[in-house]
Amino acid sequence: MDERAALSLVGDTLPHAGDDCAVFDDLVLTTDMLHETTDFPDGVTRYTAGWRAVGASLSDVAAMGAEADAALAVYAAPRFEAAELGAFIEGCVDVCEAVDAAYVGGDLDGHEEFTVSTTAVGRTDAPVYRSGAEPGDAVCVTGTFGRSGAALRLFEAGETDRANDLFRFEPRVAAGLALAPYATAMMDSSDGLARSLHQLAEASGCGMAVTYADVPVDPAVEAVAASPTERRELGVHFGEDFELVCTVPEAALSEAKTSTAVELTRIGTVTDEGVRMDDDPLEDRGFTH
Amino acid sequence: MDERAALSLVGDTLPHAGDDCAVFDDLVLTTDMLHETTDFPDGVTRYTAGWRAVGASLSDVAAMGAEADAALAVYAAPRFEAAELGAFIEGCVDVCEAVDAAYVGGDLDGHEEFTVSTTAVGRTDAPVYRSGAEPGDAVCVTGTFGRSGAALRLFEAGETDRANDLFRFEPRVAAGLALAPYATAMMDSSDGLARSLHQLAEASGCGMAVTYADVPVDPAVEAVAASPTERRELGVHFGEDFELVCTVPEAALSEAKTSTAVELTRIGTVTDEGVRMDDDPLEDRGFTH
Repeated sequence: MDERAALSLVGDTLPHAGDDCAVFDDLVLTTDMLHETTDFPDGVTRYTAGWRAVGASLSDVAAMGAEADAALAVYAAPRFEAAELGAFIEGCVDVCEAVDAAYVGGDLDGHEEFTVSTTAVGRTDAPVYRSGAEPGDAVCVTGTFGRSGAALRLFEAGETDRANDLFRFEPRVAAGLALAPYATAMMDSSDGLARSLHQLAEASGCGMAVTYADVPVDPAVEAVAASPTERRELGVHFGEDFELVCTVPEAALSEAKTSTAVELTRIGTVTDEGVRMDDDPLEDRGFTH
Repeated sequence: MDERAALSLVGDTLPHAGDDCAVFDDLVLTTDMLHETTDFPDGVTRYTAGWRAVGASLSDVAAMGAEADAALAVYAAPRFEAAELGAFIEGCVDVCEAVDAAYVGGDLDGHEEFTVSTTAVGRTDAPVYRSGAEPGDAVCVTGTFGRSGAALRLFEAGETDRANDLFRFEPRVAAGLALAPYATAMMDSSDGLARSLHQLAEASGCGMAVTYADVPVDPAVEAVAASPTERRELGVHFGEDFELVCTVPEAALSEAKTSTAVELTRIGTVTDEGVRMDDDPLEDRGFTH
């Protein structure tokens, strides 16, 4: 059974699961685990690791249109070096401060591979799910795509300072809160834009038609992509950018755009069925964790 | 730096950390990670693993005297087998139901070693910390000690059914809620009774004098312990029993006892300094995770 089939089994068993966060009363809750071999390439500092791991969970809170309250992390490593652990915690604290949340601690654990497990908790009375998109709604995204893919190329090239900068992102909590009154469906783009569009379409029982030229590809991608194919791969499929992908009724679009400090870009329209980019079927393929 | 020194560094950095749960507004939050090699001996079923992992986090909520609201888990394994994953989730759901909490899901993650990360969230307006014990208070414990140690011996002996039964425990959420109005300090016994007494004494700036004969050692220990030394080791040091250890003012003791459905046993008295058992210094040694 692959991870997707297993997740579907989990979804069938647990009524609360399946969105970016689980919802319980007025709380939204999310947890995730990251590993050195799959999630932290050579050159990632412990500061960036803390920032990014906690940021990924805060991004899930943002995707529900919720206020971020608090985050926790388990730091598992073969040994505990004061400088590394201190830097990690500093990254956790700073990313929480960036979104007005509190980093409240967590646990330490001896483990062969550097592994981080994070949890974030937020609150909202009106969570935005993946399932409310309606045909005719505008498909919108925050920020730019391909930062993390570009960062990975820079890590490979040994340009670790610039790569670490790109690897830290501001979770879109403020944008999520601003968009919540307008968005009919929302999620974060952690598995890539293409996967996100497919997941929103599936959860909402509709289709999506988007235009590649309208996808805001990050300038960092232009600098590292060796070909148009690679540019598209990093911008559309690579993922791990933690931007918001949402649908907004046409009539509310200009108000939604002015509500957010971060750029909100329309990249397409919700349709009855099928996920297409420039009239071609868009492959349901992204970053597999 | 060992885990204890590292935890102390974390405590210095994070004002909210250091107790069984972090406290944020009216929420108590806790997270933990368990690994196959260190926490799940051969013979532990996936059902027991789910029950025990989520139960350990719910026990932290209980130790704050809080109501348990919801729990999450990350299930990380080399591959996902439907039967194993289904049994794991069933264990998570059942232990939550046992304490009136909701298991709201979590995440899956590909990982070489079977690893589980759990989070629990609870609510209380008046959390009980480790730091309020006063000289003269009665030192009390819920339930019995040594179950997990006895279970480990049974796993080693291949008696897996009985061992799995012992390895599942009911988190003391109801007892924690009942004791909260009386307890001056409280924590769970996950690191063993001896470590818990030292941690309460340290946090409260006091001492503890307890009587070994009053420690309620589990009948399962009597059945597996080959010697009086082993009985004491399993009952006092081994840990992982997830009982509550608390201090209660003498005057409130009989009311506290009748408030809890589970047996509350007095094992000693809070003193000015030093942690002693039968007048000998009690070694600050327990289960190291």
